[in-house]
Amino acid sequence: MSEKHLQAGDVLPPYNGKLRLFAMRFCPYAERSVLVLNAKNIEYDLVFINLDHKPEWIFNFSPKGTVPALEYEEGKAIFDSNIINVYLDEKYPEKPLQASDPLRRAQDKIIVENFSGAQAAFYTAAFNSQALQPNMVENFHKGLEGLQKELESRGTKFLSGDDAGLVDYTLWPFLERFLSLPLLGKSEFAIDPTKYALLSTYIEAMKNVPAVKSYCLAPETHAKFTESRAKGDPDYNMLDTSAVCCMRPRKKKE
Amino acid sequence: MSEKHLQAGDVLPPYNGKLRLFAMRFCPYAERSVLVLNAKNIEYDLVFINLDHKPEWIFNFSPKGTVPALEYEEGKAIFDSNIINVYLDEKYPEKPLQASDPLRRAQDKIIVENFSGAQAAFYTAAFNSQALQPNMVENFHKGLEGLQKELESRGTKFLSGDDAGLVDYTLWPFLERFLSLPLLGKSEFAIDPTKYALLSTYIEAMKNVPAVKSYCLAPETHAKFTESRAKGDPDYNMLDTSAVCCMRPRKKKE
Repeated sequence: MSEKHLQAGDVLPPYNGKLRLFAMRFCPYAERSVLVLNAKNIEYDLVFINLDHKPEWIFNFSPKGTVPALEYEEGKAIFDSNIINVYLDEKYPEKPLQASDPLRRAQDKIIVENFSGAQAAFYTAAFNSQALQPNMVENFHKGLEGLQKELESRGTKFLSGDDAGLVDYTLWPFLERFLSLPLLGKSEFAIDPTKYALLSTYIEAMKNVPAVKSYCLAPETHAKFTESRAKGDPDYNMLDTSAVCCMRPRKKKE
Repeated sequence: MSEKHLQAGDVLPPYNGKLRLFAMRFCPYAERSVLVLNAKNIEYDLVFINLDHKPEWIFNFSPKGTVPALEYEEGKAIFDSNIINVYLDEKYPEKPLQASDPLRRAQDKIIVENFSGAQAAFYTAAFNSQALQPNMVENFHKGLEGLQKELESRGTKFLSGDDAGLVDYTLWPFLERFLSLPLLGKSEFAIDPTKYALLSTYIEAMKNVPAVKSYCLAPETHAKFTESRAKGDPDYNMLDTSAVCCMRPRKKKE
């Protein structure tokens, strides 16, 4: 694992035969794949890159230089969090994270689709200094209400059932970041525990899922990164990233 | 099948127990699902709707009123062409349209992803009266070149092999419409048969796939619809839609 975010001019660490995920520590899309790799106990290396000064070699793995990208064989990669995660779940079928019923799989994808309005609202709220459009706040809460309704109608601890599954790991990175919005002065985006009782219980349960626990960051940490990014100078290396992924074998820092 | 595009005020035709696809005759996304239903010989009804004056009931099937939406059980539907098509392929596994290898399935999705720049360029070229940005033409041809390269490296008649598969049916509706651009005065978007020899052979082969042949429209027809839409008054009912889908049992027009 890279100890800091590699950037233009930095060399690509040598390939060691393991799966390798290119990511950025604060990227919610990359986190989706980290969670799936963790949940399935797949051994992998993590390479963090600086998205403002991308190392030249990232384009060999991901044509637009986006993360996550997964190097599945030396020099060969696939990209896009959803494509990577379905691939991982099907290539390593031991602990399946997708529902076995085709209709349920389709419905899980629709939950993610219906949540995209809340995600878009989050980005606007977090990174846009302009006054918020009222419909942004509305879209955000529509997304949360839809999710809570879904949890209610499914009646299970996680959307996937007794255990977290792909749909849970796909939504989680955004929920994790939503919790930082009140710290950034966006109180309209607070997740009120009375209105969102069931959703709040779900959020607490997700925080305790081992795959999440080992990578999840505190709202304060997300807020701090967001502030640095909103100022135009994202502080990619603000964390000691050698310590955050406790699930995988890693070199101890001296 | 609806004989014309149903609109606000029109009643929902009674459900008859068959799968029902809500579509618009000229929509490339809806066409993706029509092709998959045809290719898998699944019996279904087709309901065309007017996207400018949407019938109220479409929102019961598709939250944003987009097409395609698939009613799989009375009053219950899923939406999004990719979600619908994977569902159909997995629910009706007899003639699988997806590759059996997880990596190949991921790579097929990446082909579609990489083609999205050409799709975006098409929409700008077809419906935008402003002067084209040079990078639009470039993105369009980058998409075509990428696709031709992929056909070359796979060395098969279709991307999926000897028979057309999900990836072919996903891209085709756009290729079909690209052929209308020169008729709209956009000669920069012509698919030159010398530069694109292999791609042109592929396009001809796709036109002859039964699932495509029964629904495909001529470039002239697409151009005519596009012109009406660009003028702000889309001529949804310009075709006798009772005759276009020869694959499925249908009522003959008197």
